[in-house]
Amino acid sequence: MKGHIYVIGMGPGKRTGMTAEAAEAVNACDVIVGYTVYVELIRTSWPEKDFFTTPMRQEIARCRKCYEMAEAGKTVGLVCSGDAGIYGMAAPMLELQREYPEAEVTVIPGITAANSGAAVLGAPLNHDFCVISLSDLLTPWAVIERRIRCGVQGDFVMAIYNPSSRKRADYLRKAADIMLAAGAEPNRACGYVENIGREGTQAVTCTLAELREAKVNMFTTVYVGNSRSFIQGGKLITPRGYEL
Amino acid sequence: MKGHIYVIGMGPGKRTGMTAEAAEAVNACDVIVGYTVYVELIRTSWPEKDFFTTPMRQEIARCRKCYEMAEAGKTVGLVCSGDAGIYGMAAPMLELQREYPEAEVTVIPGITAANSGAAVLGAPLNHDFCVISLSDLLTPWAVIERRIRCGVQGDFVMAIYNPSSRKRADYLRKAADIMLAAGAEPNRACGYVENIGREGTQAVTCTLAELREAKVNMFTTVYVGNSRSFIQGGKLITPRGYEL
Ligand SMILES: C[S@@+](CC[C@H](N)C(=O)[O-])C[C@H]1O[C@@H](n2cnc3c(N)ncnc32)[C@H](O)[C@@H]1O
Ligand SMILES: C[S@@+](CC[C@H](N)C(=O)[O-])C[C@H]1O[C@@H](n2cnc3c(N)ncnc32)[C@H](O)[C@@H]1O
Repeated sequence: MKGHIYVIGMGPGKRTGMTAEAAEAVNACDVIVGYTVYVELIRTSWPEKDFFTTPMRQEIARCRKCYEMAEAGKTVGLVCSGDAGIYGMAAPMLELQREYPEAEVTVIPGITAANSGAAVLGAPLNHDFCVISLSDLLTPWAVIERRIRCGVQGDFVMAIYNPSSRKRADYLRKAADIMLAAGAEPNRACGYVENIGREGTQAVTCTLAELREAKVNMFTTVYVGNSRSFIQGGKLITPRGYEL
Repeated sequence: MKGHIYVIGMGPGKRTGMTAEAAEAVNACDVIVGYTVYVELIRTSWPEKDFFTTPMRQEIARCRKCYEMAEAGKTVGLVCSGDAGIYGMAAPMLELQREYPEAEVTVIPGITAANSGAAVLGAPLNHDFCVISLSDLLTPWAVIERRIRCGVQGDFVMAIYNPSSRKRADYLRKAADIMLAAGAEPNRACGYVENIGREGTQAVTCTLAELREAKVNMFTTVYVGNSRSFIQGGKLITPRGYEL
């Protein structure tokens, strides 16, 4: 007997931020597995489902649990916030498949924080951009630093994930200093959004110099504009280059 | 009287790739405006709506039309494929708002091709990545070339939009040559997906040397892995760095 695993991107938070395809995949599952916080976000919409929650930092155990249930014939949904393929569980799940060749794995995309937060701020991405995580749990800081520098040198808009945590309270300041040293102007247009698509959404536009001093938490996505980005009527906009 | 404009990201194609929030926004609109191809994709789901289609390359006229209808009191939806904030209409619409201060504009995010195509290929993005368009209609080629070089130097995964068109049939080859010159190995794991979320979806995994020779069209999104990406069981995977 061969089970099926769906790795499902739930979007930023509320049920309305999911796609119909993601909701159908949840419907099709016998059991939903996920990190406690995300499971709580959807439990109310599917009160009749079986849920299996695991604490944070148990990512690989969570994937193995899914394969074990799939091998027992169940249809399993592993839910992730945003898109499962962006700092999410799609990659480790697919990597582990070499140990569980019987199960089938399907990835269902979701709206990632870079896009959902951008809509709140206006249109900060719009042109070429890069997405960088400041978490050095799994990536050496030297690599992150090099990516930030290349982001500025390439004049990319940058969307920053994991900008802060209790242990890394000063990382956004460190990142801003690298950007300034790489040539980004202190008045570069920036912004950040906390709790995108959830209760208590808060958006701020500011300069890079102000961003350096900003207090952000781990439920925040940060945007640093390119050299042509600007703030107009409270919106952060990166122009595409049309003649208006 | 003050109308409302929704700039709505429709996801890659089918109705099931839209979020509930996007579908609700379409429902709320008196008239739906868009480039012919995207409007056709959704017309069947909302047969009772008024549609107003404009040909390609009329982007700014399309935005002005929306403002005019909004000033006449209508609720207007401008639909875009994928996410409206990624090479889409959210930015020009918000820029133009300075000429039409009465209308209110809301951006509704959608799943962009980078994410929907990634789910088809496996988990190619997953870590830090950048999104680059090869279209030099509005961006000088020198800027695009610099961004490709910075993408390689930063060891970002790269998602490439607009990889080809009739006039730019050799641009993907040119981009691959820049990557190779910047130090990406010829056997770098790559892939591309045509017609994501639509009839005739086709996914290919290959090396960078093979990508250089690939024939792709304008409905294709291309992925170039970072130095640690690999192909396993037909899936393109960029590891996050967990110990498995
Ligand atoms: C481990 S990553 C997971 C990303 C997720 N897979 C996605 O695609 O959005 C966690 C980081 O994503 C960002 N993020 C995710 N959801 C968010 C939300 N609802 N509001 C603001 N930021 C969010 C924050 O930067 C957070 O630190
Ligand atoms: C002008 S951009 C629009 C991007 C769109 N706003 C988005 O967020 O996906 C057009 C490019 O997006 C990519 N694209 C958009 N939809 C696609 C689909 N369904 N399948 C493959 N590629 C797609 C292709 O690279 C195409 O050349």
